[in-house]
Amino acid sequence: MSAADRAGLKSPIRTYLEKLHATYVDLHDGQVASYIPELSHANPNWFGICVATTDGYVYEVGDSRQTFTMQSISKPFVYGLALEDHGKDAVFHKIGVEPSGDAFNSISLYPDSGRPFNPMINAGAIATTGMINGEHPAEKLQRLLDMVGVYCGHPVEVDQRVYESERSTGHRNRAIGHMLRNFEILTDDPEPALDLYFQQCSILVTCRDLAIMAVTLANGGLNPISGQRAVHQPYVEPILSIMSTCGMYNSAGEWIYDVGMPAKSGVSGGVLAVLPGQLGIAVFSPPLDQRSNSVRGIRVCEDMSQDFNLHLFHAPVVAKSVIRTSYNASQVTSQRSRRDHEEQLLQEQGHRIRVYDLQGDLLFSTVEVVLRDIMERHERLDFIILDLKHVTSIDTTASSMLCDLLHTLEAQPCMLLFSNIEPSSPFAMSILGREGSDGSQGPVIYEDHDLALEWCENQLLARYLGTPSGDAAIPLAEHVLCQGLSERDLNHLQTLLEPLSFAPGERILETGHAPDYIYLLTRGEVSVTIELADGKRKRLSTLPAGMAFGEMALIERAPRSADVTALTPVACYALPIAAFDRLQEINPSLRMMLLTNLLRHVSGTLRRLTEKVGILTG
Amino acid sequence: MSAADRAGLKSPIRTYLEKLHATYVDLHDGQVASYIPELSHANPNWFGICVATTDGYVYEVGDSRQTFTMQSISKPFVYGLALEDHGKDAVFHKIGVEPSGDAFNSISLYPDSGRPFNPMINAGAIATTGMINGEHPAEKLQRLLDMVGVYCGHPVEVDQRVYESERSTGHRNRAIGHMLRNFEILTDDPEPALDLYFQQCSILVTCRDLAIMAVTLANGGLNPISGQRAVHQPYVEPILSIMSTCGMYNSAGEWIYDVGMPAKSGVSGGVLAVLPGQLGIAVFSPPLDQRSNSVRGIRVCEDMSQDFNLHLFHAPVVAKSVIRTSYNASQVTSQRSRRDHEEQLLQEQGHRIRVYDLQGDLLFSTVEVVLRDIMERHERLDFIILDLKHVTSIDTTASSMLCDLLHTLEAQPCMLLFSNIEPSSPFAMSILGREGSDGSQGPVIYEDHDLALEWCENQLLARYLGTPSGDAAIPLAEHVLCQGLSERDLNHLQTLLEPLSFAPGERILETGHAPDYIYLLTRGEVSVTIELADGKRKRLSTLPAGMAFGEMALIERAPRSADVTALTPVACYALPIAAFDRLQEINPSLRMMLLTNLLRHVSGTLRRLTEKVGILTG
Repeated sequence: MSAADRAGLKSPIRTYLEKLHATYVDLHDGQVASYIPELSHANPNWFGICVATTDGYVYEVGDSRQTFTMQSISKPFVYGLALEDHGKDAVFHKIGVEPSGDAFNSISLYPDSGRPFNPMINAGAIATTGMINGEHPAEKLQRLLDMVGVYCGHPVEVDQRVYESERSTGHRNRAIGHMLRNFEILTDDPEPALDLYFQQCSILVTCRDLAIMAVTLANGGLNPISGQRAVHQPYVEPILSIMSTCGMYNSAGEWIYDVGMPAKSGVSGGVLAVLPGQLGIAVFSPPLDQRSNSVRGIRVCEDMSQDFNLHLFHAPVVAKSVIRTSYNASQVTSQRSRRDHEEQLLQEQGHRIRVYDLQGDLLFSTVEVVLRDIMERHERLDFIILDLKHVTSIDTTASSMLCDLLHTLEAQPCMLLFSNIEPSSPFAMSILGREGSDGSQGPVIYEDHDLALEWCENQLLARYLGTPSGDAAIPLAEHVLCQGLSERDLNHLQTLLEPLSFAPGERILETGHAPDYIYLLTRGEVSVTIELADGKRKRLSTLPAGMAFGEMALIERAPRSADVTALTPVACYALPIAAFDRLQEINPSLRMMLLTNLLRHVSGTLRRLTEKVGILTG
Repeated sequence: MSAADRAGLKSPIRTYLEKLHATYVDLHDGQVASYIPELSHANPNWFGICVATTDGYVYEVGDSRQTFTMQSISKPFVYGLALEDHGKDAVFHKIGVEPSGDAFNSISLYPDSGRPFNPMINAGAIATTGMINGEHPAEKLQRLLDMVGVYCGHPVEVDQRVYESERSTGHRNRAIGHMLRNFEILTDDPEPALDLYFQQCSILVTCRDLAIMAVTLANGGLNPISGQRAVHQPYVEPILSIMSTCGMYNSAGEWIYDVGMPAKSGVSGGVLAVLPGQLGIAVFSPPLDQRSNSVRGIRVCEDMSQDFNLHLFHAPVVAKSVIRTSYNASQVTSQRSRRDHEEQLLQEQGHRIRVYDLQGDLLFSTVEVVLRDIMERHERLDFIILDLKHVTSIDTTASSMLCDLLHTLEAQPCMLLFSNIEPSSPFAMSILGREGSDGSQGPVIYEDHDLALEWCENQLLARYLGTPSGDAAIPLAEHVLCQGLSERDLNHLQTLLEPLSFAPGERILETGHAPDYIYLLTRGEVSVTIELADGKRKRLSTLPAGMAFGEMALIERAPRSADVTALTPVACYALPIAAFDRLQEINPSLRMMLLTNLLRHVSGTLRRLTEKVGILTG
């Protein structure tokens, strides 16, 4: 029970599901299945509804935890296992994919080949089960149970009494098995395949389990609660295709037309429906209609589809939001502070660096939008950064399209970089592993987006200003705090300063320490960082020669709020706060100049940051 | 030809399509249709491929502008018009939705009712055409042509020679017409319906047109180039459902299994395929296979589906990116400046205001994520703002879920607001038109997100501080620039100030004017705005009593960079820059205090803005 429920305030969705449950709890049409004796013991009043989301939340109403046997609902999942064991072609060779228009237990074999029409009718399902790999029956059963267990998120088992009941009364299925043997669809004694089939039908699940199995398919084969893969992504499409055309026995056309979700039902009263990319739905209610579908199950699926617009072809338009924001480096610069002439140059030439902040799932139609934008602009660009921080997945098509783009641009003056990629991810591997890529232009993959932007800025500045940024020492007179100082004031200031030097990696300022000095950096680079609550270190900015740090000590006599570390060999001057304070008496105009310079610098930073916020929230 | 093509740099997608075209241009299998004499004149070498995106871009390769007649491709579109004219139930009553498994020109009627199996076989299509509304045949034809014209984005016409050829040789269709009349599916003389049917089959289109028609369906019925609606959204689902099960004649199961896109072909050699929410694809090549589908058309669709992962059930997971960012008002405050004690209170209590920046299409499974997050948190919240700036559409389900949420929260201490909604939009109407909503708590809809946040902050401050913010005048000693001033310095400052007052709406500062004064606001509120390139006015911030404006004149003697306007009756003091400069000689410590206070204020603003950027880019 969630916090919201405790407060007596129900989610409108939960309220809806409860109403739906209340509407159909009094619907007593249909009959509990009786052709397998054990199934007839089911309570016709059992009624559960569950909805599971792709982020792993499950809404449950009614008898959502009552166990029952999967029966035919096992078929699409076992079909997925057969596909994993043999591939699409080999399975297609033995079992068709056409709706038969016949009842679930009809034989429906292609007359010449004996090939079952599809894997959802019993003949096709038995043929499918016959394809499951394993050295011996126990291993096959275990593989099948393990597979269902990953879908559900917990170990599952066979209901022995139902299984024995199925086995002892499964004459029709036994006939089908021998017919399949006759046509060489089953190439061995049909008994072990039949036995495994009876066991798969007798696996115990709950309505909640079915909703999670359904959403695992909606989520591309990944159980969203456990994060475990139940089936490989490429086999999700065939499973859902078969469910969409053959899942609800006859009337394939009407089901897609009216309900619009791939679905599967079983004679024990379960139904599951999948809205790809969005939801899994399950209903459990034993009384069946004449087509052997759960009466309440069908009504609930129809109502939910209608009331929530859950039709497959009511699809969100994904391309419109793949680019979260896009900007150039004259609009948004990196967190590296720059001296005035560098800042100026980035203002003028920063449009040659473009950043795309992408989001969501990358697939053909979302990457296409990005590619098109890049192709339109690339002639006017020197650097392109694709930031993948908000990207949730990259399919094989998207990955190869981005590799193609990288390859295409390698012959061009415009360089492509990626940021917020784990170097060990499959996508990073495919980028780095490209043929002909020698990395001579510099790294193309960055874990930190801001470092990628800083690298591009540095390249751009070096191109226009001739020298790599940040190496040279600068004279004190060029320091940001010393602008406009007279020679006399500069000399006075010099007498107050203590020269210091630091090796790369050395800590210069530490969070929490007393604010005794401000520092004027004249050579090298420092990094300003803080430690986050989770112990990770976050970089706030990089400062080059000419910048000040610890300067907030001038106005707020509070302990240091960040750490400052030398990135390169660093030379700087420390100005004691006490000396600064004494200037009030002995050289107020120098003090005023220092303060005014600081104010100008802070105001400039504020102005640029305000513009940045405008762009980022644009 | 785009800029990219001119530069000799091809989009990888265009390159792919050209390769695909080159691969199949030499495939000479199949026969040009000859059963209608005019069709046999088609050039078997014609071959075009087009792909259209939901933002209206069209990739074209080969004979993409060659005209040909629609033939059966007209059927799903006319079906859509019949649905608009009569609704789903009335159409379903006359025409089924089951794949027949028979050839396109088979009669396939349900034996008892004479009802055609589906609207894609000729019998169903003729019955569909017989349902089109209109006073007389010319009006019916015009409505049909207008409908196709909106899909294509330009007027279309009938090829008279093909039409006459169809009419003079359409004996089989005429037989079907009379059979439909016999069963009362057509309730009138079948000739006018047949005549209109022959005309719809003879409408001239190009491969490019078909791609745009396809993407219009992918885009929920809205032509993405013209922005015009070709068919109402609720009828897109039935059209695509029928195409998915009955569009490619026999083998409905195999098409969905292998290609996975609703599609329709015609005997003149066109094929179109729809990937809902993503793409429209069209191929034109006259030679047909034995099932009367374009040989090259089928191969191209199969290859593209395979190579680009375009299967219907390879669906992006939309719920993962509906919340673009979410933050509370202690992390990100509005653009209204606050006095220290107010700032302090927002730091402490701002967590009671939560902003959700939503994005993309709002539908059940994306709104569900938002609702769930709100239900989990609402007990700890006083205000919730849903910002819809980046939302691309809101379906009826999403709209009613949000109305339900608003209704649910009305009985709670937590208030829900929406920002970036046009007050005239259907969603705004449904929000404002709710029963029982008296607006007594304040407006729930804001065009500007920052104003919504500011309003919530003001409510929160009033709740904790007892008085509404911004009304009372403040003594000069409490002004942000006067903190820590001695009484003597305060008196000195007072002698330099010129008291001014302004009425609501009065302009106080103007962009471009000389920076002669800085202003200390002691009563009322001002708004700081700039004029954008498009003439619109953008609000940068709101300033209450206690704040300064025009203060950058102290450090940068540049012309004013923004306009400042009184929002309420305003009292302020103007400090001449010249007087400030003279302080250097006569009261340097006062000047220093003013500068230090300004630096502290600017630094505080910078620090908060830095945190804001961290949250927004999080």
